[in-house]
Formats: sequence, C-alpha cells, structure tokens
Amino acid sequence: MVRVTIWNENSHERRDERVAAIYPKGIHGAIASGIAQDGYSIRTATMNEPEHGLTDDVLRDTDVLIWWGHCDHEEVDDAIVDKIYARVLQGMGLIALHSSHYSKIFRKLMGTSCLLNWRVADEKERLWVVNPAHPIAQGVDRYFELEQEEMYGEFFDIPDPDELVFLSWFQGGEVFRSGCTFRRGQGKIFYFRPGHETYPTFHHPTVLRIISNGVRWAAPEPELKPISNFPGPAPALEPITNEHKKR
Amino acid sequence: MVRVTIWNENSHERRDERVAAIYPKGIHGAIASGIAQDGYSIRTATMNEPEHGLTDDVLRDTDVLIWWGHCDHEEVDDAIVDKIYARVLQGMGLIALHSSHYSKIFRKLMGTSCLLNWRVADEKERLWVVNPAHPIAQGVDRYFELEQEEMYGEFFDIPDPDELVFLSWFQGGEVFRSGCTFRRGQGKIFYFRPGHETYPTFHHPTVLRIISNGVRWAAPEPELKPISNFPGPAPALEPITNEHKKR
Amino acid sequence: MVRVTIWNENSHERRDERVAAIYPKGIHGAIASGIAQDGYSIRTATMNEPEHGLTDDVLRDTDVLIWWGHCDHEEVDDAIVDKIYARVLQGMGLIALHSSHYSKIFRKLMGTSCLLNWRVADEKERLWVVNPAHPIAQGVDRYFELEQEEMYGEFFDIPDPDELVFLSWFQGGEVFRSGCTFRRGQGKIFYFRPGHETYPTFHHPTVLRIISNGVRWAAPEPELKPISNFPGPAPALEPITNEHKKR
Amino acid sequence: MVRVTIWNENSHERRDERVAAIYPKGIHGAIASGIAQDGYSIRTATMNEPEHGLTDDVLRDTDVLIWWGHCDHEEVDDAIVDKIYARVLQGMGLIALHSSHYSKIFRKLMGTSCLLNWRVADEKERLWVVNPAHPIAQGVDRYFELEQEEMYGEFFDIPDPDELVFLSWFQGGEVFRSGCTFRRGQGKIFYFRPGHETYPTFHHPTVLRIISNGVRWAAPEPELKPISNFPGPAPALEPITNEHKKR
Repeated sequence: MVRVTIWNENSHERRDERVAAIYPKGIHGAIASGIAQDGYSIRTATMNEPEHGLTDDVLRDTDVLIWWGHCDHEEVDDAIVDKIYARVLQGMGLIALHSSHYSKIFRKLMGTSCLLNWRVADEKERLWVVNPAHPIAQGVDRYFELEQEEMYGEFFDIPDPDELVFLSWFQGGEVFRSGCTFRRGQGKIFYFRPGHETYPTFHHPTVLRIISNGVRWAAPEPELKPISNFPGPAPALEPITNEHKKR
Repeated sequence: MVRVTIWNENSHERRDERVAAIYPKGIHGAIASGIAQDGYSIRTATMNEPEHGLTDDVLRDTDVLIWWGHCDHEEVDDAIVDKIYARVLQGMGLIALHSSHYSKIFRKLMGTSCLLNWRVADEKERLWVVNPAHPIAQGVDRYFELEQEEMYGEFFDIPDPDELVFLSWFQGGEVFRSGCTFRRGQGKIFYFRPGHETYPTFHHPTVLRIISNGVRWAAPEPELKPISNFPGPAPALEPITNEHKKR
Repeated sequence: MVRVTIWNENSHERRDERVAAIYPKGIHGAIASGIAQDGYSIRTATMNEPEHGLTDDVLRDTDVLIWWGHCDHEEVDDAIVDKIYARVLQGMGLIALHSSHYSKIFRKLMGTSCLLNWRVADEKERLWVVNPAHPIAQGVDRYFELEQEEMYGEFFDIPDPDELVFLSWFQGGEVFRSGCTFRRGQGKIFYFRPGHETYPTFHHPTVLRIISNGVRWAAPEPELKPISNFPGPAPALEPITNEHKKR
Repeated sequence: MVRVTIWNENSHERRDERVAAIYPKGIHGAIASGIAQDGYSIRTATMNEPEHGLTDDVLRDTDVLIWWGHCDHEEVDDAIVDKIYARVLQGMGLIALHSSHYSKIFRKLMGTSCLLNWRVADEKERLWVVNPAHPIAQGVDRYFELEQEEMYGEFFDIPDPDELVFLSWFQGGEVFRSGCTFRRGQGKIFYFRPGHETYPTFHHPTVLRIISNGVRWAAPEPELKPISNFPGPAPALEPITNEHKKR
C-alpha cells in the first residue's frame, strides 16, 4: 500500500474566511478526502506541527509526499528541506502543487529560479493533455476546464521537463506548462499547476484524479534499493594492463 | 569576442610536485594556452585570489566560465557560488570539468547528489561520440583515447542530460556518460569528464578542441536579454469575461 | 555561406486568387524575400518542376531545406522523399512549416501520425517563448501575435520534441506546441506552426526572423563528416581473451 | 492480465544446428518459458505462419509485442508492418530485441537508419544501469555480465531516447546505449540490445527479468482510449471576436 503524506502550509485557511469556507478541513484535508477511496495509506502534516510534521519517522515511512505552500515558503526550516531532498534522491516521490513551484524543496531539486508570471482574476483555465498515454493523464478527456483559477504564464523558469503531460490555456491570453515530470536521483517528481487557495480546485474530480494518478506514478518501485556506489575507490572488474608503461 | 574565465582551484599544482611538473602554469594555464588560438578573450582566476578571483566585475564580463575543482570544493565561498548561479541563470555558459562534478555550483544547478564511482589506476579511457552532429563533437573522430586517466563509473547521479555527446569506456570495465549538456534558466552547461590532475589530459589536442567547442556552444546568444517576467500581477492580454458569475 | 532551398507546393497560389493576392511570388517567394538580407545563398523549388525541383545536385548543394506543403502531400514522389530523408540523416537541416506537419518527409522522420486538430476561423494566435535562450528564439519578445491564423490544437501526435521553443495560445480556446526541434541522424529539424495560405503570415517580421534563426540553427556544422560505421565487422580495439573458454 | 505476443523470425533455429541446440523451442519459446511465471497471457508468432502469425485478431488482442528478427527483415510483409505501426500508435507496447534494431517496424517508428557497428567475437558484455529507479531496471544490480555476446558499438543512429536505462561495456573496447525507451503516439517502445542467436542470452535470468519488466512497463494503461482528434474542423471552445475586422 502506497504511503502518502500530504503537507500543507495551512496558513490561508486559518487567516482568511473565504479560504476557510472553501477548505474547512484545509487544502490537505480536501486532498486527503478526495483520494481516500484510492487505496493509499494517507496522513497529513502542516507547518505548525513540530518539525512541520515531517519527523524522520514520517519521512522514512512516506512513499509519496504531496506539497502545497505559498506565502510562508521562507518559514520552512532548511534542515527539514534537506531531509526531504535526501529522501527524494533515495526514491520518495514528490508532487508539487501550484504555488509550490516556489517552495524551497522544489527550487532545490530544479536548480533554477522557478519564477513565472501570475495574475488572480477569476479567469478560466483549460488544461490540455499533450501526452495521452501517460499514467498521470488516465481518465482525463482531451482537456478539462476550471472556471476560475489564478493565471500562471510563461516563461516558467524550470529545466526542460523529462515529460510534459498538460498545457494550460488561460482566458487572459497566456499558456503554461502545467503538468511536468522530472527525475532526481531515484525520486520521481510531478509538478501540477492548478490550486489557488481562493478557488475550489481541490474539490474538482479531475484535479483529484490527476493527483491520485500522480501518487501511483511517483511511488517508488517495490524492490527499489539504495544506490550502492563505492565510498572509496571502486575495484577494477577487468585487468588493467598499463601497456603504455611497458613501451 | 567570447569572454572566457578559466577558474582553477590550483591546489594540487602548488602542493604536489608531480602535478606541478605536468602543469607548471596550472591546469588553468594549460587550458588557457590550449584554446588561445581560437579567438576568445581569456582570463584566469584561482581559489586564493580575493573573492576567488570572481568579483562582480569579472562575472559580469564573463560569457563562459570554465571550472576545475577537486579537493577544496567546500572552501569555495557560498556567496560566490550564489553569484555564479545567478549569472548562469541569466545566460553565462558553464563548463564543468572532471572532478567539478562535485563542486558546489554544479550540484546546485543539477539538484542531485552528483555522486559517482571512481578509481585512480592509470587505466585507459576511450571516449565515444554518440551525437556526431553536435557542435561540441566537431573535429572529433568516432572516438579518441586517453592512455591514462582516472576512472569515473556509473551510476552517475545527475538528472537526465538534455543531450548526451560522449560515452566513456574504461579498461577496468566501467562506462560513463562523459559529455552531457544541461540548460538552466538562460545558461548552457557542459559537463566534460576527463582531466585528473596527475595526467597530461589538458595537453591533449582533442580534449582542448572539445573544451573550445564547448565554449563556442555555451556562449550566450549575442542578442540575449534578461528574462522579463512581471514583478507583480501580469496584465491580462485578452478580456476576462467571468461568465460563471453571470449565471 | 549557408545554402538554403525553399520548397513550396505552390498550388493554392495558382488556383486561389485570394492566396495569389497575398503571395504574388508564392509563399516560397515571400520567404526568400523575407530572409534575403541575412546572408544566405537562397534558391527555391516547387512541385511542378522536374523532380519537384529537388534534383540530386540541388539536394547535395542544400544545407537547409525549408518545406511548405498542404493539399498535395500525396503528390510528392516517394523517390524524392527518400532522397530528402537520406540527406537529412547525413546532416541537411529541415524546417517544416505549418501544414507540412503532414508532409511525407516530416511523418517519415517522426515515426508518428503527426495528426492534430485544426480550424480556419480568422482567429488570433499568440506565440509564447518557453526557451528564451534558444538560438531560434533570438530577437523575439516574451510573445508575439498573429491577428488571424488557422488554429492547430493538441493532441499533436509527434514524438516528444528534443526542445520546445514556442507554445501557441488560440482565441478559440486551444494550445499547441508550435516550435519544436528534433534531431534525426546528423540532421536538425525545426517544426514551426504558423503559415496558413490565406493569411499574410510569411510577411510578418517576427515569423521571418524565426525562420531565419531556424536556418542558422539547422545548418550543419562546417566540419561535419559522414557517419563512418563499418560496413562489415568492426575490428576489436582491445584484446578479447575469452576467459570463459579456458575454464 | 497483460496479453503478450512474442514474434520471432525463427530462421536461424531451423537452419543452424548450433542455434537449435541453444534454443530447441526457438528464441520465442525460450522467452515464453522465461517469463511464463510472471502472470501474462502469452502467445508466440513466427515468420512462416500465415500473415506471419500477426492477424488482425492477434494484433487487436496484443498489449505488448516482443520482436526478434535478424537475417530476414526484408521478408516481413509491408502490410503487416503497417498494421503493427498503427497498433503501436494506438497504444500497443513494443519490445525490440537485439538485431531488431534494423527491423522494418523499428526503423519506421524511429525515423532514422538505426545502423550501428557490430562484431561477433565471443566477447564479454557488461551492462550498467544508468537509471536505477526505472521500472525496467528493477531487480538488476549495478551491472550484470554476459560472458559471450555479439558486440554492438556506437554510433547507433537513433533519435535521442526518451529515457536511457542501460549502457554496455564490451571487452573489445566499445560502448553502446543498450536499453532505450521511446514513445510514439500512445505506444511505449523499449529497445534492448543483447540476444545474438548463437549465445544462450535468452536463458539468462537477468535478461529475462528485464524483458518481463519491459512488458509491464510497455503495457498500455487499462483505461487508455483512442486519440479523439476531430476528423474535420474543431468547433471553437471560446468566442472568436475577430476584432481586427472591426477596425
């Protein structure tokens, strides 16, 4: 059973009545409910818990970490970020949602600024599938629509994704690479764009389906082993003749 | 004229007579001499200079930075690393040589551990071209040989390269992705494997040719402009009708 | 000097007055005029010439072939397609424009159906740069607009591009991967979406700039040599000991 | 249950006693036995059956096609190749083994010559894992060895693989991209290098494990639907205002 930890900054929900009305159990709670029927072992964690709820035990027992952060990226403890980073390289999957494009952990894994253009104008977003055979796109039609979302526009400063799954069209005139996969070490990463806190995006069935697909895709292979590079010099596997020395 | 800065830790040369005998002007000096005829404006910089020789002025006036480091990676000032990182994202090319796979700047740009297997056993390396049309492979035959080199073996923990140009065969039985390109922001990065300090690799004409090809490839386009994302909300380019509100 | 051959089906121009009014010298003539000042050696070729104007001599002397075809794809002689294919694998660049997505040569190089969605509705297209450091994007701002174009929409059945340079936004609600590069053999291929025959797209300065950038990018390296694989068994470069036979 | 069809030219086995001694049930039979315990529905097909054993019914009921061909590539009926090609684009997985690099179907899907260097000299091959988290590499250690194999060496004329999983080291001095994945349409393709007919490669447990991993990886998603592009013009999803006409 895939073990999922859903991490949420959980800041807007506590400070903004509009957000609390949309997400009474928090964004993390909405996602947890939304993928509850898919057979995962789910826990949640939030910023204000000790160690942000991401203790060594929790991270060790997490196969896929879902991340939502926005206004408090800088409040996340660097030591925790380093632990998450190490776990991703060891094989833990990571699903970075929406404004998590600018989280410490995502930027550290990308090696770029991860900046983009944005606008909150209650506009329509239409997400198009550009890789229909990808596991993450299963159950999604040619496209789906979110009637109101924040706009994210190019140029999005990320490395070229390993795979591009979704592209967004925005009513205000922009486009965006909205579903991108990356591999870092043994860990699989899925960035998924939608999910501004003032819209009910995480109640949308297709959004939840895609997140659940992402969990299954990002989960480490059952037999995955740590990388076993030698700590010192590697023994030669074949005789080394050093012919040049004999000349 | 492309402006090249060749940075070298310059530590082995000053402490080890064998290395000094091979590189009396330092590894940086050998590379500078080796590409001197190719029409670049070349300067060098080393660890022990103030700000490691990489002042704001030097970095601003550098189109391509060549980097060689090994035993003193941790001595490189984080503030300088951050400046180099910013310049790469703005468009400065970076050529990371050999043991620079584990330099702070390369790891920061990759987002992975960049660990690998290694062995110093005076063994033969044969580098094969797997992308013969690539600008970096021009002037190189199907393969070339280095009679003695350090071995670097897989698994090399890097993101999938954007382009793979060279693969190495080692006498002791390993293989390695020896010529890899990556784009980060507007900057082009070329990792090139050979160049252990106890071997005359940086006097080898094909190695020098490849480094020079790399400089030409990694140099920013003459018209390159800074990325101009909006600092705040981006204005809409099309009318946003918010039809949903009218229902 | 890069030698460019601009091939055009040249069918709409001869049969449709509206098209002839926009392109009195043909689409090939418009492109030739539009990049004339960029220092290339330019010739044109059209369907109705003997061998479609693409004789062995012409193909041998072409560094970059620009292709525009639409309603008469099936009329192109397979033998000529095979010659173009061989030349691309040897290093000739290919720029496939607009409806050439369904040309025999492009489909043969892609290995997919190259089908897409389309609509001719005089709608606005906005092309966004998603790889601002790419040579093909130089001189282009964050985006540019074509007031009227045909729509091409996803899913576009191509292999994952090596590089994605432009994405299109369409007024009618679609998005498209509009600037894509591919390498096949030693040849570089650039697919560029705009250019429906009933619109003045090939008079637009940014479109012409991008095509010219594409020519420079796709031109083979001056020193490029044919691939020199052995016709029969390759001689061993190292002793083969067959230790297993001695056991 | 994934439905696998193993296709074999089955020519060497019938004409060469040495090969028949190694593969008394044919290469197809060896592979079928070797993956029999992994829970697939397996059938085999060979060249001399009507329609090469690949009738419309068989292809429709195949999720993953494994292909081994060598001396009789040209004997494969183009009409059958076209049907396989269509099925791959619709989502059927394809595993191309060894000399199938030059099969009609693989070349048609790649869009390149697929040529390489080769040598039959009973030499050792060592395959290194360069993507240890990949599903196809599960159960494989850092490397594995085949004591005798044919050599395949670079330059291998394929498009850049979507993913590189294995690299080979050969005793005679060459390297090779031995495990490569590609997506074409909705179909996943895995090329795997080893498997010369005069060696017992298809009895090697790691080789069989990798082929079985490949089957699981290449199998289409259970919910995969045909691509539903419009046959004619696509209806607009948003109002098209044609503002330019009003000016």
